Amino acid sequence: MTERFELVEKALVKMLEEKKYATLREILLTMNPQDIAAVFNSLQEHRIPLMFRLLPKELAAETFVEMEPDDQELLIRGFSDNELKEVLDELYVDDAVDIVEEMPANVVRRILSQVDPEMRKSINQILRYPESSAGAWMTTEYVSLRPEMTVEESILRIRRQGVDKETIYTCYVTKDRTLLGIVTVKDLLLAEDDEMSIRDLMETDIISVTTHTDQEEVARLFSKYDFLALPVVDKENRMVGIVTVDDAIDVMEEEATEDIELMGGMLPSENTYLRSSVWELFKNRIPWLLLLMVSATFTGMIITSFESALAAQVALTAFIPMLMGTGGNSGSQSSVTVIRALSLGELKFADLPRVLWKEIRTSVLCGVVLAVVCFGKIWLVDRMLLGNEDITWLIDAVVCLALLVTVVTAKIVGAVLPMVAKVIKLDPAVMASPFITTIVDALSLLVYFLFAKAMLPI
Amino acid sequence: MTERFELVEKALVKMLEEKKYATLREILLTMNPQDIAAVFNSLQEHRIPLMFRLLPKELAAETFVEMEPDDQELLIRGFSDNELKEVLDELYVDDAVDIVEEMPANVVRRILSQVDPEMRKSINQILRYPESSAGAWMTTEYVSLRPEMTVEESILRIRRQGVDKETIYTCYVTKDRTLLGIVTVKDLLLAEDDEMSIRDLMETDIISVTTHTDQEEVARLFSKYDFLALPVVDKENRMVGIVTVDDAIDVMEEEATEDIELMGGMLPSENTYLRSSVWELFKNRIPWLLLLMVSATFTGMIITSFESALAAQVALTAFIPMLMGTGGNSGSQSSVTVIRALSLGELKFADLPRVLWKEIRTSVLCGVVLAVVCFGKIWLVDRMLLGNEDITWLIDAVVCLALLVTVVTAKIVGAVLPMVAKVIKLDPAVMASPFITTIVDALSLLVYFLFAKAMLPI
Repeated sequence: MTERFELVEKALVKMLEEKKYATLREILLTMNPQDIAAVFNSLQEHRIPLMFRLLPKELAAETFVEMEPDDQELLIRGFSDNELKEVLDELYVDDAVDIVEEMPANVVRRILSQVDPEMRKSINQILRYPESSAGAWMTTEYVSLRPEMTVEESILRIRRQGVDKETIYTCYVTKDRTLLGIVTVKDLLLAEDDEMSIRDLMETDIISVTTHTDQEEVARLFSKYDFLALPVVDKENRMVGIVTVDDAIDVMEEEATEDIELMGGMLPSENTYLRSSVWELFKNRIPWLLLLMVSATFTGMIITSFESALAAQVALTAFIPMLMGTGGNSGSQSSVTVIRALSLGELKFADLPRVLWKEIRTSVLCGVVLAVVCFGKIWLVDRMLLGNEDITWLIDAVVCLALLVTVVTAKIVGAVLPMVAKVIKLDPAVMASPFITTIVDALSLLVYFLFAKAMLPI
Repeated sequence: MTERFELVEKALVKMLEEKKYATLREILLTMNPQDIAAVFNSLQEHRIPLMFRLLPKELAAETFVEMEPDDQELLIRGFSDNELKEVLDELYVDDAVDIVEEMPANVVRRILSQVDPEMRKSINQILRYPESSAGAWMTTEYVSLRPEMTVEESILRIRRQGVDKETIYTCYVTKDRTLLGIVTVKDLLLAEDDEMSIRDLMETDIISVTTHTDQEEVARLFSKYDFLALPVVDKENRMVGIVTVDDAIDVMEEEATEDIELMGGMLPSENTYLRSSVWELFKNRIPWLLLLMVSATFTGMIITSFESALAAQVALTAFIPMLMGTGGNSGSQSSVTVIRALSLGELKFADLPRVLWKEIRTSVLCGVVLAVVCFGKIWLVDRMLLGNEDITWLIDAVVCLALLVTVVTAKIVGAVLPMVAKVIKLDPAVMASPFITTIVDALSLLVYFLFAKAMLPI
């Protein structure tokens, strides 16, 4: 599918070069805005305005929304005031806000000077909400009905107003801007009596969010209740906008990406990978690397303080990476599982005892199996196959006992820390592998050397 | 919000105990099926059938769909044939399939004996598709129109048929079951002429999937094109069903969870964390732990073969954890970023040169900063503050040079391996931290000891 798309892309560019504009336009008319935008993204800069002007007004605006910010900026800078106004008039408010957020200040001023006053007001309103709040994701364009309307009047109203609304399928019943109920187009179409009043038809048990609700909570509500749109109200329960399901999907992907980045020991990125500059990638990655490098001073100190033990039993050193690695892996397995469950709302802090009990049993199972296999492996491979005569039964036992204790400790630390983070209002994902690995590294070394001191002639 | 919900839950259970059935029923009527299902989940077993029988037919079925499989099974076993039939008649086909998939064989037989023949046929059809294909996620209930119908006739048809369909908002125009076009209810309502034919109104540039399209691809199409539903066709382009956006959201969450689990070094789980048994958790976690533990034999061998070098310069051992840790973290930063971008379809294999160039520059930047900071830290903290006189300028230089080379290598390996995995049709997420860490561990030790041998008097 992707390959076929690349062929189409090449054919289109060729037509543009050969000035076959009529044919090119015909083909563009059959394409989706998203796919046309992808073609623009691979065009040379000077060709972008040329091809854009081939698109009819509505398709041009729909394509504009889907384009990369660089391409959008290039086009806006080349537009006459009239062209700019034409594109802006076709945009939904929330799309206009997304564009404004990506543009430099002088382009933003030009955009705001060309949109109609009502839209300017809405854009400015939405821009005031915190970046990851429901207010920032909402659109102010929705169909509102009054409770005293009939089904027939409502359908007429949708027909008159619907063309400018992002979704018409969920309508909001308001009085003095207060949200009273919800009616879907399905309810309206399937109503047995056209004269029935909206008051009798509407669902009054409404789930809504406020402008300041966090986007993660918004996404969770969509996922739980299968909404197509969710009303956004202010503190006085007055309707100010709606969030639609397509935005909720974007939020979900953003949140999952953010969790994955934090788990991988990075700060969350603003842009997609290919659009991030080397400098941005560096800035997101270096803080954790530095922090974790410096905190490795502890593991270094532990090793240094057991230097004489290591010198007396040189074979011990060879197992340090295996112990620390297995500890780290065990810990990150638990932390990653718990963090994801917290993100999806499947776990809350009150579940801590259940989580602990589950992890203790799982970790003992894992630890015992690992220790037994490790014992056999060290004896058969390291001593007999590789012929390392320094390894004694006792050393083998020390390594495997340390392994068992490390796995159990790592799994408990890995499961508990993210839950504690949640309670003290930190992002649980920050507690993932890199952080937990550092703690587990130090713990596993301590356990190892303590067993060694107790059991070996050192 | 969650706390308030727990209070409601307690109040409801109390009413049930005090046999205030009328009030209880009144309250249940105002609640969402999802929330009622949550109440059932915390009820004692013997109370479940009692409370379920308080619900009116339609709400009972909607709640049933949202319940945990254990509760569903309990109810089905307690139902009379008549009660079972009543619930089943209210279900959408795809929900019925979800339930059937979770039930033991004897319960499945009972369900299939009670559903009407047409639904039985649909259930059996959907059950035949592979678990993660579009066919398994689709429903066979959708509104189909014929091209020669008028707008008015179409709306009438929706009104007659819509009550049994999961979504009415996207209608599918078919002839001899072949998919010709798509018409939305918005198009129908906003059409200027009621006598206009569907043929003239429908969108013919259709994006569809086949029954065997992978669920990840389905989710990507929803995210890219903002669909509410996507048609599923067979190999002959005949319409067989639709996937709706709420299912696409479930797929997205499932896919993200799977990636996160693979990145954390686990096999993907079947159940949510709290519903997974200790045995399941153990089975998902132990394979990678064992594999990585055994593969640590290599790092052990490298250390053993440089034993004499370590004995000559004991201070070298203390920096092994820091070097391996920083290498592992650098590698997993890159791999996690690349894996996520591959999952979201932002990257393809053809981008490999761009990825490489980006990672080389980023890793050199990170490596140089880390090396410089590390050099100062070792001298100021480890030597002067902690007074470790074994550390010389040369040892410090060896550690920091090895660090620089390790970081660059780790980032390149971390970015390239997932892309290679994608090309040879492996899940890129398998190449994440645990796997890459093992490779990077071995590489960083080799680099470290080679620098040590070359620069120190060993």
